[in-house]
Amino acid sequence: MGEAGATLFTDGRYRTQATSEVAAARVAIVRKAPALAAAEWMASGKGRERGKKTLGFEAESTSAAMRDRIAEAVSSKLRLRAAPPLVERARMVKDADEIRSIRRAVEMGANLFSTALKTIRPGVREVEVAAAMEYQARRRGAEGMSFSTIIASGTRSAVIHGRASEATIAPRGFVVCDFGVILAGYCSDRTRTVHVGTVVRESRRMYQAVLEAQQAAIAAVRPGVGVAEIDAAARKILRKSKLARYFTHSTGHGLGLEIHEAPRVAAGQTQELEPGMVITIEPGAYIPGEQGVRIEDVVVVCSSGCEVLTPTDKELIIVD
Amino acid sequence: MGEAGATLFTDGRYRTQATSEVAAARVAIVRKAPALAAAEWMASGKGRERGKKTLGFEAESTSAAMRDRIAEAVSSKLRLRAAPPLVERARMVKDADEIRSIRRAVEMGANLFSTALKTIRPGVREVEVAAAMEYQARRRGAEGMSFSTIIASGTRSAVIHGRASEATIAPRGFVVCDFGVILAGYCSDRTRTVHVGTVVRESRRMYQAVLEAQQAAIAAVRPGVGVAEIDAAARKILRKSKLARYFTHSTGHGLGLEIHEAPRVAAGQTQELEPGMVITIEPGAYIPGEQGVRIEDVVVVCSSGCEVLTPTDKELIIVD
Repeated sequence: MGEAGATLFTDGRYRTQATSEVAAARVAIVRKAPALAAAEWMASGKGRERGKKTLGFEAESTSAAMRDRIAEAVSSKLRLRAAPPLVERARMVKDADEIRSIRRAVEMGANLFSTALKTIRPGVREVEVAAAMEYQARRRGAEGMSFSTIIASGTRSAVIHGRASEATIAPRGFVVCDFGVILAGYCSDRTRTVHVGTVVRESRRMYQAVLEAQQAAIAAVRPGVGVAEIDAAARKILRKSKLARYFTHSTGHGLGLEIHEAPRVAAGQTQELEPGMVITIEPGAYIPGEQGVRIEDVVVVCSSGCEVLTPTDKELIIVD
Repeated sequence: MGEAGATLFTDGRYRTQATSEVAAARVAIVRKAPALAAAEWMASGKGRERGKKTLGFEAESTSAAMRDRIAEAVSSKLRLRAAPPLVERARMVKDADEIRSIRRAVEMGANLFSTALKTIRPGVREVEVAAAMEYQARRRGAEGMSFSTIIASGTRSAVIHGRASEATIAPRGFVVCDFGVILAGYCSDRTRTVHVGTVVRESRRMYQAVLEAQQAAIAAVRPGVGVAEIDAAARKILRKSKLARYFTHSTGHGLGLEIHEAPRVAAGQTQELEPGMVITIEPGAYIPGEQGVRIEDVVVVCSSGCEVLTPTDKELIIVD
């Protein structure tokens, strides 16, 4: 284990998996918390350097308690240094293989929407819709869903994280369907909002406003643009329709191996878009106690502009 | 907001849900990270006390980076104090309502095993088995699975966390099925290992040893006994069969609102069992590259001894 070598510390539960999957590092199977074991190994001073070495740790994903335990164990021998989220930053820009993997996940995820459309009927429980979609996803080879499927009908459509419940699909109103799969390690994420029964003018106007906001945000995506500008592009449209105050979350997020990765596409964020970043564009409007709409696609930033990976039909679908 | 008042800090995404679900606290909808907003509110000194107040934070579930951000924002006005996992400790002992909820989740989860038995056949993909189980769970009202369903066949049965894969059920050998549902917020967790095709003596001996180890551990569960003793009871039996070195994880864990709660039922842990604790008992043996067996029940610690919540039939089932 020279200075340039890498060692993966893990515990006995992962012995077989580590042996078969880890190629670029030595594997150390340890009994105590792996991070603590790694720190103690480093402190044991097998290296040839003199002086105090520096041990970096991922501050965003290490608990304060673990940092304290590591400090107590090794601070006499090592300098501890809170590292910025280097891995997360490196992962913001996807390579061609990753974009291919995300494209496949997005395509499979998008196909589940047809299952949703076949299942959504007044009186059917929201969980039935989710169950049918998840079953299809599994049968087609998904490792699982990238988050708990959201099927939110009637007034529940105004609940942003309205996970499919025992409630039945209301006889009239929007149904927000937000769902994603994990395929070969990569996540998809898509939202479509359909309407059950006759659409009143107010609801159609709301849907159109969210759709235009989403299209405006997508149109703004290109390298060099700050993520806050993308968010502002969506909000500007919703402001015209007096819906901006009902858009109570950010416009999007990166995705890849995890469902939420950097960058956050939100006001106050300073990240500039770069080719290879993959982000969601998902503005919405939610009037508490009444109704909500969200429309979401996954886009990849290209050398100029962007490509929408999600199949693009977004006209309002009415289920009778 | 007096000294005795409670305030929940959350962000705009949870406005509707917080309004409808939170009864015992004021709700503050904030734009920045809720923990940071809470700390700043406290530092703003609306309280009537003099001197520096102490702000406790959950050290096990607060990132080191968040602690640094909070410290930077408020350390001139507040003392920061790393709190032990008080909530997790309080949650170790379940009340009667919680035990009822867990019982229901365990019963539903256990029923899925019959779906697994109907689906497991040589040549069927592991994910097909998981898909069928998860579909049933959803249709019966589960909010989801409590973890990614494990269906591990053939040599994969030796992979402790062998999530259902595209691999097909092998023509012969063990299939480890480890699965749980979330029902009304509470988790279940059950493992059964079945065998496809003719069982050679060595495999039957291994199954019996794990079963005896599991029964010995269950027999040891009663108030006042340390969790390490439960773990030791299982290991002692496996040692007799020279399988102890293949039992590479701990004997169990608490479960409730989360799939892994305190206490850990493991060597080196000092927690004593108390009535109302709900734990899994799940010894296993895994011979890398060959085969593995795990058997798991959920038990609740009673005033004397324990009750096994999981339906108890554990004789080796052979699938032809």
